[in-house]
Amino acid sequence: MPEFLRLSSPTTALETILHELPDQKPVSENINTFLALGRILAEDVFSPHSLPEFPRSTVDGYAVIARDTFGASEAQPSYLNLIGEVPMGAAPSFLLTSGSCALINTGGMLPTGTDAVIMLEYTQLVRNSSEGSGTIGRNESSEIEISHSVAEGENVLHIGEDVVTGQVVLAGGTCVRPAEIGGCMALGITELYVAKKPKVGIISSGDEVISPQIRPLPGQVRDVNTYSLAALVSQAGGEPVLYGIVPDKLDVLKNASTKALAECDMVVITAGSSASVRDITSEAITSLGKPGILVHGVNVRPGKPTILAMCNGKAVFGLPGNPVSALVIAGLFVVPVIEKLLGAKAKTKPSVFARLTVNIPSQAGREDWVAVKLSEYGEWKNSGVHYIAEPVFGKSNLIFSLAIADGLLRIPPDATGLDAGELVEVFIL
Amino acid sequence: MPEFLRLSSPTTALETILHELPDQKPVSENINTFLALGRILAEDVFSPHSLPEFPRSTVDGYAVIARDTFGASEAQPSYLNLIGEVPMGAAPSFLLTSGSCALINTGGMLPTGTDAVIMLEYTQLVRNSSEGSGTIGRNESSEIEISHSVAEGENVLHIGEDVVTGQVVLAGGTCVRPAEIGGCMALGITELYVAKKPKVGIISSGDEVISPQIRPLPGQVRDVNTYSLAALVSQAGGEPVLYGIVPDKLDVLKNASTKALAECDMVVITAGSSASVRDITSEAITSLGKPGILVHGVNVRPGKPTILAMCNGKAVFGLPGNPVSALVIAGLFVVPVIEKLLGAKAKTKPSVFARLTVNIPSQAGREDWVAVKLSEYGEWKNSGVHYIAEPVFGKSNLIFSLAIADGLLRIPPDATGLDAGELVEVFIL
Repeated sequence: MPEFLRLSSPTTALETILHELPDQKPVSENINTFLALGRILAEDVFSPHSLPEFPRSTVDGYAVIARDTFGASEAQPSYLNLIGEVPMGAAPSFLLTSGSCALINTGGMLPTGTDAVIMLEYTQLVRNSSEGSGTIGRNESSEIEISHSVAEGENVLHIGEDVVTGQVVLAGGTCVRPAEIGGCMALGITELYVAKKPKVGIISSGDEVISPQIRPLPGQVRDVNTYSLAALVSQAGGEPVLYGIVPDKLDVLKNASTKALAECDMVVITAGSSASVRDITSEAITSLGKPGILVHGVNVRPGKPTILAMCNGKAVFGLPGNPVSALVIAGLFVVPVIEKLLGAKAKTKPSVFARLTVNIPSQAGREDWVAVKLSEYGEWKNSGVHYIAEPVFGKSNLIFSLAIADGLLRIPPDATGLDAGELVEVFIL
Repeated sequence: MPEFLRLSSPTTALETILHELPDQKPVSENINTFLALGRILAEDVFSPHSLPEFPRSTVDGYAVIARDTFGASEAQPSYLNLIGEVPMGAAPSFLLTSGSCALINTGGMLPTGTDAVIMLEYTQLVRNSSEGSGTIGRNESSEIEISHSVAEGENVLHIGEDVVTGQVVLAGGTCVRPAEIGGCMALGITELYVAKKPKVGIISSGDEVISPQIRPLPGQVRDVNTYSLAALVSQAGGEPVLYGIVPDKLDVLKNASTKALAECDMVVITAGSSASVRDITSEAITSLGKPGILVHGVNVRPGKPTILAMCNGKAVFGLPGNPVSALVIAGLFVVPVIEKLLGAKAKTKPSVFARLTVNIPSQAGREDWVAVKLSEYGEWKNSGVHYIAEPVFGKSNLIFSLAIADGLLRIPPDATGLDAGELVEVFIL
């Protein structure tokens, strides 16, 4: 098997395919901000105005001129004239001068002239002695006793404290989460340019492969990869386009992959793992365009017979047919290519640290990915570890070995296995 | 503010609301497996047959009777008659007896009589000496030289090695990922019963709140919470139902929340943070049904004025109006209630461990959630830590302080702040 003589390391293989991808801005589309959850921003978003646009109170209290409160204490309170109440949702109709204050609610707009808010807790409403007795109504002149001083700006959200006019509030490449949607709404940005979902053509090949709807005859197996890969592509932000099952015939595979390449932004072919089928796949891929195959064979388990190619500026993948290999390899290579086409900023891959329950052997020079189940354990506080990871051993044909796993554990190429009790990083599936 | 005299701890508050939720199975719906990504299984999924259903080769080689290879070595090879080739996708039409073998590809079905496969690498095709010279064709009798012995079962996937008939292959409450979809397809399970998405009614209240489409006048702010909470609800597996903006008037809020409660499985009201508005919200919630308000005030920052209620068997939340508080509190309380309604198994919350860049003060007895930015740093290998966490300080009104954050850091109630350099767990946003 000459193609395996020079296996690439997974890191080199990924760098190779990413490097060959045409360096172009993602194709963008304009969508409603409300529908942008999980999408990638195609360009920077600028603030059309500052936020807040007016000084707001962060507490319930009285809007004051801070200077008027200086020196106030419980023993020696200050007194200010209450001249009105700030309405919610409108600018106060009055302005304040020294010696006066206005009732204000959280979120209310500070009246012109005021520069701080004193919390209700530090005040008391008192009758103005010159007014005589009786209940204090709105139109009566009242006095507020203040037992605390406030500094200028205290309990106030300043104009532009969140964002200022013209600021880049969200950078291109950002993944839109609930907070981004909220932020855009605050600024009236109700539409966003997001990266169009790259179309990923998926072809499943194999004479033994049949549709999941059909009851297999002896020797036949149902198509798993089309559907698991389509789900992974969706998860990664791509749009899967299914080209169905193709028999192990060069001309049929060539036709299907040519059509897929023409209609999509990238193509994923899963093939059987036998040498003859691999040859058909590599020949079909080579026929798709230049430069063609970049990597043929990766020093990784599962997934050694992986093919990475670039044909006429589009990435083409030949993945092993074993369902576990296909999913693991697609995670390693297809997902990062989708992310690059989306122009997505590098994300924090969710992972946890865990203690390994058993020894896992591995071959030096090869990177291994092992499915593991996680369970919690107590003594994490000081060590930063609160999971244990138990490998789910199983051949890479066994799809349910992945279905019961919580994550994947990487054994780096420079290790010859991992020891029980060792600290490992588990990437959440 | 008497409602704050007895603040619940966040843990107690969550336990209280979860405990009051009616203990019933999630409402389920039948959907196409292909569309089930991210959904929660409403019931256990059983295997209708074993997988694989026939013994399969895991390599390219020759199907043999293992006993026939015993003792074979490079120095003393064994010889077996090649009687045919196993077709892909069909049962072999022949059976094997001692002394013979058949060519088989990866994934091929083992012929009756064989119990192992010897890899191509350890074999050589030789002409049968009795046949004379010439190219060996398919119809000629050929011999395979074997330089290695194989054990019974070697390089074979056995019947039921992945799953056996009648086995629970996926448990109810499982979140459907790409591997689950693939596994179901392998078994011909093309439809699944998943939990129906709980409808979450969302009401935004406040005289100052206007629609994002409108340019605010002084004193007005655009509605952020409806949209950020709707996105969070979608992310958590719920179906947001928007009831729009309601002014700070008790009867209007009562009407809107009564309608929302009747039409949805739970209701979330965000209100302003002023005392008067909180009173209106709590009165409206109290009017919705028994037992009513369970928790009024949680010892957490941000989000102290949170209301958790149960009205006629449905959860009702009164969240603070500040956009950051609303999102953080919804993450703490609304999301777990959605997950319980979905019957979802506890998920591994994606988090990373990080070293804190600066001291963060906090009040003993109160749980604090601080938005942080993560960046990678090198020396993680031995410590299990490869991020540093830098707090994004900002008042809870500042939505963009969350938009630039990567995660939330929890300062437990028993801590009086955290120190620079301390190891902290950051939950990914």
